[in-house]
Amino acid sequence: MSTTQSGLDPLLATGGASLTEQLATRFAQRIEQRLLGPGARLPSVRDCARRHGVSPSTVVGAYDLLQARGLVQARPQRGFFVREPAAAAARSQPATRSAPLPAPVDATALIRSMFQAQDGPPAPGMGTLPESWLDAPLLQRLLRRVCQHPEAWLRYGDPAGSPRLRQALSQRLADLGVAASPAQIVTTVGATHALDIVSRTLLQPGDAVLVDEPGWAVEYARLTRMGMRLLPVPRGQGPDGGPDLAVMEALLREHRPRLYVTVSVLHNPTGASITPALAHQLLRLAELHDLTIVEDDTYAWLAPPHATRLAQLDGLRRTITVSGFSKVLTPQWRVGFVAASPALAERLIDTKLLSSLSTPGPLEEGVALCLEQGLMRRHAERVTALLDAARSRSVRLALGAGCRFVTPPAGLFGWVDVGTDTEALAQRLLDEGWLIAPGGLFHATPRPTTLMRINFATTQEPRFWQRLKALKAFKAATSGHS
Amino acid sequence: MSTTQSGLDPLLATGGASLTEQLATRFAQRIEQRLLGPGARLPSVRDCARRHGVSPSTVVGAYDLLQARGLVQARPQRGFFVREPAAAAARSQPATRSAPLPAPVDATALIRSMFQAQDGPPAPGMGTLPESWLDAPLLQRLLRRVCQHPEAWLRYGDPAGSPRLRQALSQRLADLGVAASPAQIVTTVGATHALDIVSRTLLQPGDAVLVDEPGWAVEYARLTRMGMRLLPVPRGQGPDGGPDLAVMEALLREHRPRLYVTVSVLHNPTGASITPALAHQLLRLAELHDLTIVEDDTYAWLAPPHATRLAQLDGLRRTITVSGFSKVLTPQWRVGFVAASPALAERLIDTKLLSSLSTPGPLEEGVALCLEQGLMRRHAERVTALLDAARSRSVRLALGAGCRFVTPPAGLFGWVDVGTDTEALAQRLLDEGWLIAPGGLFHATPRPTTLMRINFATTQEPRFWQRLKALKAFKAATSGHS
Repeated sequence: MSTTQSGLDPLLATGGASLTEQLATRFAQRIEQRLLGPGARLPSVRDCARRHGVSPSTVVGAYDLLQARGLVQARPQRGFFVREPAAAAARSQPATRSAPLPAPVDATALIRSMFQAQDGPPAPGMGTLPESWLDAPLLQRLLRRVCQHPEAWLRYGDPAGSPRLRQALSQRLADLGVAASPAQIVTTVGATHALDIVSRTLLQPGDAVLVDEPGWAVEYARLTRMGMRLLPVPRGQGPDGGPDLAVMEALLREHRPRLYVTVSVLHNPTGASITPALAHQLLRLAELHDLTIVEDDTYAWLAPPHATRLAQLDGLRRTITVSGFSKVLTPQWRVGFVAASPALAERLIDTKLLSSLSTPGPLEEGVALCLEQGLMRRHAERVTALLDAARSRSVRLALGAGCRFVTPPAGLFGWVDVGTDTEALAQRLLDEGWLIAPGGLFHATPRPTTLMRINFATTQEPRFWQRLKALKAFKAATSGHS
Repeated sequence: MSTTQSGLDPLLATGGASLTEQLATRFAQRIEQRLLGPGARLPSVRDCARRHGVSPSTVVGAYDLLQARGLVQARPQRGFFVREPAAAAARSQPATRSAPLPAPVDATALIRSMFQAQDGPPAPGMGTLPESWLDAPLLQRLLRRVCQHPEAWLRYGDPAGSPRLRQALSQRLADLGVAASPAQIVTTVGATHALDIVSRTLLQPGDAVLVDEPGWAVEYARLTRMGMRLLPVPRGQGPDGGPDLAVMEALLREHRPRLYVTVSVLHNPTGASITPALAHQLLRLAELHDLTIVEDDTYAWLAPPHATRLAQLDGLRRTITVSGFSKVLTPQWRVGFVAASPALAERLIDTKLLSSLSTPGPLEEGVALCLEQGLMRRHAERVTALLDAARSRSVRLALGAGCRFVTPPAGLFGWVDVGTDTEALAQRLLDEGWLIAPGGLFHATPRPTTLMRINFATTQEPRFWQRLKALKAFKAATSGHS
C-alpha cells in the first residue's frame, strides 16, 4: 500500500503522477482487489474532494478516467458505480463461464488484502500474529535439522502424512485430553485444507450445515461455493460463550443438517470459549439428531490448557478435530491436520489423495521436531505472554475510543462494537492505510453492523484509535451525509 | 509389504504366526487397502492352497478367521466374498453418511498401495522415479539456502504464491514457448492440487468433461466424485499420438462439454505426444465449440524441449497449463502451478484461498532457486539420460516376455499389451510382492483388459519379467480355471 500512517491524506504527499491519476489509480486498485465491490457507489464528487483534500475538478477527472477504463459507469442523477466484473471477465476470457458465486465476494477480497496489507502499517483487521512475534531462528533451526535427514522426505510418504508428525500430534492431543491414535490423524496443508477435506468427504451439494454466527468468512464462502445451505447459530451472546442451543435445536428439527462446523475454544471473532456444561448439552443434542461436529481448534496453542473441547468429552465419535500451526508458529509452512474416528480417517485420506495427493514432507518433519522437543510449547508460552500484554493495551485504547467489547476480551481477537457502521468506516480507514475487519464479514448473511473484529496484537497503536475516535465523531456530526 | 522378491511363496518362509493367521492377515490387509474390493470373490480353497503352498485346511481356517472378523461372508455353493465396507463403516461411525462413491474404488486403492509399496521391491506399477534417482544433496543444498532467508517465507506471502517462483516459472514457460507473465501464474500444492483448483473454479456438478482414455485414474476419480459426467476421448491409437478428433467432435456436438482435461506431452499411460498439426486442429475444434482445455504438463521435464504444447499455440487464451515437480525433483515437496489468462488466474486464486489459503513458502523458494540457477535443467538432463537407458532395458525385457507396446515407448511410462487379463495378473503378482498397474485403472469406464502401464525406471529386473512370462504361460495352460 502506498499510503502513510500519518492520518493526513497521503495523496497530497506523493510526487510523480498527477493528482487525478493518483486518485484514479487508488480507486482502480480497490476495485481490482474487490474492496469496492460490483455495484458499489463511489463517493459523491464533493465528499471525495473533501476527503482527499483535492478540488472537485480533480475528482471529476479521476472518475472520468475510471469510466474510460471500463471500471465504473455513470448513472444519470445517481453518480458513479463499480461495474459488474462478469462483463469484463467475459470479454477477456470467452472460453470460461462464470461459476456461481453466491459467496460474499468481500470475504476473499478481505483475505487477499490481508496478505497484501503486511507490507504496510500494522493492520488491525489481520488474522495472524505480527511477523516480529514469530521465531525465525527457531524455524531455521528446525529446517536445518530436517535437511540432515532427507530419507524422511525424499519420496512419497504415507498418504496419511508424516508418521512422525502424526505420532507427535497424537501425544499433543492426549495432552489436551483428546484420545486419538496416529492412525486417526491425517495431515493437511493447514487447517483450511483440513476443513475443506472434511466438507468434501461428508457433504453433498444442497446439504444443510450449521455454522457459528458470527463466524469465519472463509468457511462461509467455501461452504456456500460448494452449494451448501448455511444455517447460522447465534454465538457468544450468552454467559457460557457457546452457541444458542435453543436456536440450534429448532434448526436441527426443521432442516436436519448432518454437520456443524464450530470453534469451541477462542472462537473467531468473539474470543469466547464454551463451558463444560454447554459442551455436554451440545453433545447430547448432537446424539439425538445424529449430528457430526467439526471442531476447528485453530487457536489451541493460545488457549489455557484446561479449556474444554467437544472432542475431549466425545472421544472423536461424532466430533472431528481440525487444527494447524499458522496462528502460533508461522502461517507459511501450511501444516495442519484432522483427527477423526478410524473409519472416517480412512475416507479423509481418500479425499486428500484426490485434492493434493499428499502433503509437504520436509515441513511436516520440522513441525514434528518442534512438538517432540517441547519447543512448540515454549514458543507458545512466549507468544501467549506477548498477547496478554498486547490485549491489555488494546482493550484500554479501545475503551478510551468509546468502543464496547461484546464478549470478554480473550485470545487473539476482540469483538468490538464501534457504534457506527463498520463497512463505511473500513472504506474510510483504508484511505489512511489502516485495514480493519468490518463485522459484516463474520455474518453468514451480510447486513449492516456496528461491530468489527480486532487483532489484539496489531491494535496497540494509539494513533489508530485516535483516528477511529475522530471518524466516529465526524460521522455523528454529519450523520446521513457520507 | 512383508513379501520377498524370490518369486517363491513367502508365506512358507515367514516365522512367528501360524500359517492360517499369516494367510488371513495377508487377505485382511488387501481388503483394507481395497486391493480386494467389496464383492470380490476370494480364490477357491483348492486354488488358494496351491498358490500359497499350504494345505486346504489352512485356507479354510484363514477364511473362517476373515469371516469371524467381519471382512468376508460365505455364500452357500458360491464361496467367500468381500463384504461391503459401508456396513462396517456405518457401525463404527453412525453420525456420518456415506458420500456417493461412483468413482472406481480401485483408483485410490492403487495410489495408496503405490505409496506403501516403496518399502518393498521395485514396483513396476508405481508412478514416480525411484528414490535412488533423486538428488538428495541438491535438495539439501536448496533447503539450506532457503533457511538463510526467512524473510521470504515467514509470514503469509502473496496469495498467488511466491513472487520469486512465479517469476522463475514465467521464464521456464517462455523457454517452452508459452508466454505467461508472473501475474498469470498461481502456485499450488503439486499438479494434483492445480487440477483440483481448476475443476472447482470452472465446473459445476452435472457438467460434462472430456477426458483422455486411457488416462489418469486420480483425475477420473476426482471429477466423478465432484459429480461430473466423464466423456472419454480415445487416445494414442493413431500415428499422431493425440486424441481421436472425430470422436471428440461428436461428443462436443452431443454433450456440449466446456472443459477437456488432457496430457499433450508424454501422456500417462501411453507416453504419446501430440503433433503440431493435431494441436492446430484440436484448437480450431475448441474454438468452434467454445471449449476450454486444461493441459496437464506434468512430464514436461522428461520431454524433449521442442515438444508441441497447446498452450504454446494458443497463448493461454482457451488453454490452461498445469504442472509440477513431483516427476523430476521430488514428489514430497508438493510444488506445482497453474498458468491461465489474467482474468481466470484471479478466479483461481480465490479458489486456492478457499481450499488451502496459501501454499508452503519455504519449498516454493527452494524450487525457485533450483530453476533460477539452471540446477533443475541439469538435474533433468541426468534423469532423462538414466531414463533413456532404463527404457531400452525394460523394452527389451518386455518384448522378450512376449509383451507388445501399444504405442512407441517414450518418457516414463510404457503402455503394454500382456496378452492376458491384467486385473487377475495384478492380484497374482501382488502375492509375490510385485505391484503392477493394470490397464483397467486407466479407463474411465472399467472393463477387462490385457493392457498394463509400466514404469520404465522400475521394470529393469529380469526376475519380474520371468515371473510375468511364467504366469502368462500358466494362465494359457489352465485358462478358465483361475
